[in-house]
Amino acid sequence: MSAAPGSRADRLTEAIAAAGLDAILVGDLVRPGDSGREAMADVSWLTGYRGTSGLVVVAPAGRWFITDFRYLEVATATVPESFEVVDGTADLIKAAAALLGGYERVGIDESRTSVERHRKLTEALPDGVELSAANDLLSPLRRVKDEAEIEAIAAAAALTDGVYAWLEERGLAGRSERDVALAAERRMRELGAEGPSFPTIVAAGPNGSRIHAEPSEREIGRGEYVVIDMGAIVDGYCSDCTRTLIEGDPDPAQREVYELVLAAQEAALAAIAPGAGGREIDAVARAVIDDGGYGERFGHGLGHGVGIEVHEPPRLSKRSDDLLAAGEVVTVEPGVYVPGEFGIRIEDLVVVTDDGHRNLSSRPK
Amino acid sequence: MSAAPGSRADRLTEAIAAAGLDAILVGDLVRPGDSGREAMADVSWLTGYRGTSGLVVVAPAGRWFITDFRYLEVATATVPESFEVVDGTADLIKAAAALLGGYERVGIDESRTSVERHRKLTEALPDGVELSAANDLLSPLRRVKDEAEIEAIAAAAALTDGVYAWLEERGLAGRSERDVALAAERRMRELGAEGPSFPTIVAAGPNGSRIHAEPSEREIGRGEYVVIDMGAIVDGYCSDCTRTLIEGDPDPAQREVYELVLAAQEAALAAIAPGAGGREIDAVARAVIDDGGYGERFGHGLGHGVGIEVHEPPRLSKRSDDLLAAGEVVTVEPGVYVPGEFGIRIEDLVVVTDDGHRNLSSRPK
Repeated sequence: MSAAPGSRADRLTEAIAAAGLDAILVGDLVRPGDSGREAMADVSWLTGYRGTSGLVVVAPAGRWFITDFRYLEVATATVPESFEVVDGTADLIKAAAALLGGYERVGIDESRTSVERHRKLTEALPDGVELSAANDLLSPLRRVKDEAEIEAIAAAAALTDGVYAWLEERGLAGRSERDVALAAERRMRELGAEGPSFPTIVAAGPNGSRIHAEPSEREIGRGEYVVIDMGAIVDGYCSDCTRTLIEGDPDPAQREVYELVLAAQEAALAAIAPGAGGREIDAVARAVIDDGGYGERFGHGLGHGVGIEVHEPPRLSKRSDDLLAAGEVVTVEPGVYVPGEFGIRIEDLVVVTDDGHRNLSSRPK
Repeated sequence: MSAAPGSRADRLTEAIAAAGLDAILVGDLVRPGDSGREAMADVSWLTGYRGTSGLVVVAPAGRWFITDFRYLEVATATVPESFEVVDGTADLIKAAAALLGGYERVGIDESRTSVERHRKLTEALPDGVELSAANDLLSPLRRVKDEAEIEAIAAAAALTDGVYAWLEERGLAGRSERDVALAAERRMRELGAEGPSFPTIVAAGPNGSRIHAEPSEREIGRGEYVVIDMGAIVDGYCSDCTRTLIEGDPDPAQREVYELVLAAQEAALAAIAPGAGGREIDAVARAVIDDGGYGERFGHGLGHGVGIEVHEPPRLSKRSDDLLAAGEVVTVEPGVYVPGEFGIRIEDLVVVTDDGHRNLSSRPK
């Protein structure tokens, strides 16, 4: 990734001023120094850093990236020059606190700050500095992707398409769900992915009706619909795609449901455009499925944003107030689930463009 | 795992009384409902549950396991009968709060509670209930493993040994570090592991001196020491093992360092026994390496406990006050790192027994 994180920090500087803050401390304040990938999403968006130990301070007087001895070298090489790299080996939180003197209102994400670390940070702050809730201040900034980000997501989507092609070539019937899921994740890594963007779902026959099924030892049969939902991480960005595959002939009634879900998806895809509402697009798909008599069986939202995190804003759902903008990347994934019988879900990953969308998922449906 | 989690909850009940608490809320209060494996360690130890959504209340009047609709079925099947399973689909935190009425002092782990969720929980609590810091109340209880736990850890260690044997059969020289690391993790899964217990380290030649090296595209050469540090998860429990391998003849000076590290490890292993101190055992290994002239090059602690988490108490290090007890499982992993030249680390996983230790790592050194 060689985006322009400099301009990202500029946008954040505007956002903190608009929120009435003097400075912001960005990063994971639950387990700083040992953070998971998702807890680091804001930091990695802002700086390009991909390790597990990093806090960022953005203030009028400067921009600092604080890490420990393990990552000083890689941080200096990765993080934009507008950030000064600070050695926080002795204590990341105290190192951050020391940079915050003179600011009255410092924003932190209270959903990413533990009570324990909040107390510690408060004790370490110079007199006169107050912490203020600034949850999700970066997430609106992260919604619209730049070219390099879209390129990474498209690469992750293309890689996932390659895994689908490879799976189909090898065949599904007679193998266990778990075996197929493991093979898919192995193939992702062989093709150069950093890993799967979430645990791969392979759910055949009656298991397909369980939306969050874990792959089981159950053998996939011929004539059974198999829901495969998977994604890869490439260059720090996620993909997400679902296909419902079958070998042999489907039950005609199930086949009709497949066609219904596909029609719902196509209608929703046609509605994707800048300015369209997440609630409205969800309603387009839902109306098709309602009309087909399966409205009760579509028990989740239509889609979600994808980027550094596999689930991020905007949302396409009944309760969404989001309006789409060009450059946003979202999934479109209607489904119908008949408990104990079967499930169908079809999911594409698309970029919103000036006049509609570009589909990043190329596998046939 | 079919341990006796009932007795675990009894032990917790004693611990909360000893801490002056009336009840305890156990679980991840940062992202409840979407918790990572490590954030769920206390809950899974207490109940055997392995999913991503679960909070536990233990109080004199009852024991409750709260989860959402996705996991109600599996929770009812998994969690001991002494726990009542509660549907918290609408709101996990409110469901927990509703169970806590009538208790004055309720413990929570403030290192696992976000400021945001703490506020929400406080607002939802019935009048008169106060939250109190009860960090790491379960971790001392988790230190001594029961038979089923030791069996799972031993199985994970044996599986990892199998991966080492497989890697050595195939050979290392001429392959990239990354290729070897990917192959190792793939093989773990093929052998039935849930996954690696941490990202596999493969660090050859000069990379071996970087303790936290990520596997690179660098090709492994003949005559180079290769540090391979890996572990598997089996039945919810971790293993952890390091071998420093070589194909071809080592540089004689490096070979001497290998022998030194091995002697340090053997001395430390001989010191493992109930009642031995973590600081003392660390000092045994450190003295051997000091005497060999490499004291400055052994820049980490000697070992750590292993269980549901790959790093947990007790610690074997310069600053440890822990005393070992029979049934505890720890690593013994001295190392010497010469920057830019090479690294050597040798790590076994052992159970403390009544009269010493049993080594769970069987690969030759």
